[in-house]
Amino acid sequence: MQRRQFLAQSTLATAALLTPASLLCTAPDNRPLGIALVGLGNYATNQLAPALLQTKNCRLAGIVTGSPEKAAVWKAKYNIPDKNVYNYETFDRIRDNPDIDIVYVVLPNSMHAEYTIRAARAGKHVICEKPMALNVRECEQMIEACAAAKVQLAIGYRLYYEPHHLEMRRLGVEKPLGAVKTIESSLGFSMANPESWRLNKAMGGGGAIMDLGVYCIQGARRTVGELPVAVTAQGYVRDTKVFKDIYEMMMFQMEFPGGAVSNSTTTYSSYVDRLYATSDYRWFGLQPSFNATGAKGVSSEAPIDFKTPDYQQIAQMDAFVQNIRDNTTPEASGQEGMFDLKIIEAVVLAAQKGQQVELNW
Amino acid sequence: MQRRQFLAQSTLATAALLTPASLLCTAPDNRPLGIALVGLGNYATNQLAPALLQTKNCRLAGIVTGSPEKAAVWKAKYNIPDKNVYNYETFDRIRDNPDIDIVYVVLPNSMHAEYTIRAARAGKHVICEKPMALNVRECEQMIEACAAAKVQLAIGYRLYYEPHHLEMRRLGVEKPLGAVKTIESSLGFSMANPESWRLNKAMGGGGAIMDLGVYCIQGARRTVGELPVAVTAQGYVRDTKVFKDIYEMMMFQMEFPGGAVSNSTTTYSSYVDRLYATSDYRWFGLQPSFNATGAKGVSSEAPIDFKTPDYQQIAQMDAFVQNIRDNTTPEASGQEGMFDLKIIEAVVLAAQKGQQVELNW
Repeated sequence: MQRRQFLAQSTLATAALLTPASLLCTAPDNRPLGIALVGLGNYATNQLAPALLQTKNCRLAGIVTGSPEKAAVWKAKYNIPDKNVYNYETFDRIRDNPDIDIVYVVLPNSMHAEYTIRAARAGKHVICEKPMALNVRECEQMIEACAAAKVQLAIGYRLYYEPHHLEMRRLGVEKPLGAVKTIESSLGFSMANPESWRLNKAMGGGGAIMDLGVYCIQGARRTVGELPVAVTAQGYVRDTKVFKDIYEMMMFQMEFPGGAVSNSTTTYSSYVDRLYATSDYRWFGLQPSFNATGAKGVSSEAPIDFKTPDYQQIAQMDAFVQNIRDNTTPEASGQEGMFDLKIIEAVVLAAQKGQQVELNW
Repeated sequence: MQRRQFLAQSTLATAALLTPASLLCTAPDNRPLGIALVGLGNYATNQLAPALLQTKNCRLAGIVTGSPEKAAVWKAKYNIPDKNVYNYETFDRIRDNPDIDIVYVVLPNSMHAEYTIRAARAGKHVICEKPMALNVRECEQMIEACAAAKVQLAIGYRLYYEPHHLEMRRLGVEKPLGAVKTIESSLGFSMANPESWRLNKAMGGGGAIMDLGVYCIQGARRTVGELPVAVTAQGYVRDTKVFKDIYEMMMFQMEFPGGAVSNSTTTYSSYVDRLYATSDYRWFGLQPSFNATGAKGVSSEAPIDFKTPDYQQIAQMDAFVQNIRDNTTPEASGQEGMFDLKIIEAVVLAAQKGQQVELNW
């Protein structure tokens, strides 16, 4: 309990530090803030752009892309004026564009730090996709850059605002079904495209554990409301042609200070998507759990049944704008993103060493 | 493939060795064989005895118990004559009782070896509950004793004859949905009675991994149709008052020669019961899976839907009698039981050492 109280206090203290005293870009009225998407891949195209047609606090105002073909399509489809279209060379000029309040970085993982820092220096609030960066050091630099520029930083953790996952967190933290003792939290899919940057160590940072492991980690740590104090991990490669310098699959276990232990499977070669928490006789979970198109609840007690939003990112992005307006720290803060990278680093180290790795917070 | 062929051949070779050329106790006609239950605890009372009211090839003919009170109740309820009631002192006289063809050992784990060997020496076929014994050495002695006495030996693996689990095995081995790459196989429940022999290291042999871990191991290895070649494991104790010298929970991973990897959680303090196998995009599983009261299938392709038998042990016991009549090796042979003890020993060693342990077959 003492450790947990300390963790809670330290989180609050750091949160206070990270909340800028004044914000440069707060809109004077309640007009929707303008978002520029940086990187127009699958996630921006099929999730974020359609979600931005339904957000109330923000709207798609600009794009940053290296592809003139994509720019033409998006300009026409979303009625984006020429002056709000950037490429990676002209990106920094976004500083002079009052239409853009928020930059949303949807690039390969290796580019998250650079573009978050450049966006902050341009005076724009930033949402950065997960995983936040390649390592903890980059996360620290990103947080520092946003604090120095007095802009807000959030990670694209859509599930922090998703009703099924909020209920999992409530059940785990408020303990109406008893204290959670065991969690199984797994996510995997078959990576269909061996050419994807996600399989490139330099760009993706390490495969399934970076890309999908974040969900497993969050599923466990957010449900118990604690940070893990020790991890073990096992890495596997079966298809050495496709998985050259990254783990194809990782399994990992996390010990939490309150006594809960989680077990996770994350893989780029099989489909699994499940979060399961159990106290003693009682249990609650989501299956599927982490995908963007909808979770389904299962419980020993009562249904976990909420309306699935059209796009989970609607609540995520609207909440961020509210944080900007209220000058409050986002739930999905940069610090939260850094926590996950610290855990991922420990998991990979544990797999490499074949030994338990302790985490100090 | 070569390794698997070798394993298959070696299994057949050993099976041939273990099949006695002639059997002492084969019934001359097709009358139901008489079974004596040794140990009248919960499983004998609520599963085996009711199942024996529905078996066709065998019937409840005798009991062995140290409790005169229980003996009186069972005699009345199941119409068992006095001459077929034994206690642990008179047990060996069962040799002279032509009503008893099969001895079913349902005692605490630490007594499995002794009573299996004594039953064999009494010339009776033996069914021994799982886990077969406390360690591989005991398993070897039990197999040797039954071979020397020319009696058949089976382990009480009811799921070897359960239709949902047979379908899991068919899907995994015949691969109509593709080769299995990942398995999650977990079983746990809250051990309500801290006085249970299951929590006693000397009697239970080591807690959840001995008692419930067998199911997780079999769920994985039976589905892929292979034996694991390496394991890692993590043991946890949270409640040190109840779990004094055994693991409260174990998580373990098994690597199979064909490339599949399994991840398991087994615990005495949380409810979980699930078997999940996935190739690439396709998956199939059971949830619940291992309990005695019924499995439910889930699959990406087609329902895994079979009638749940009233008691899974009906098919198990009738099949064993058929093996006796046909002079064939039971599917759930003593060798199968020994395989699981060998894996359990490796899992516990892996947890103790914090290192991967290889298995040679």
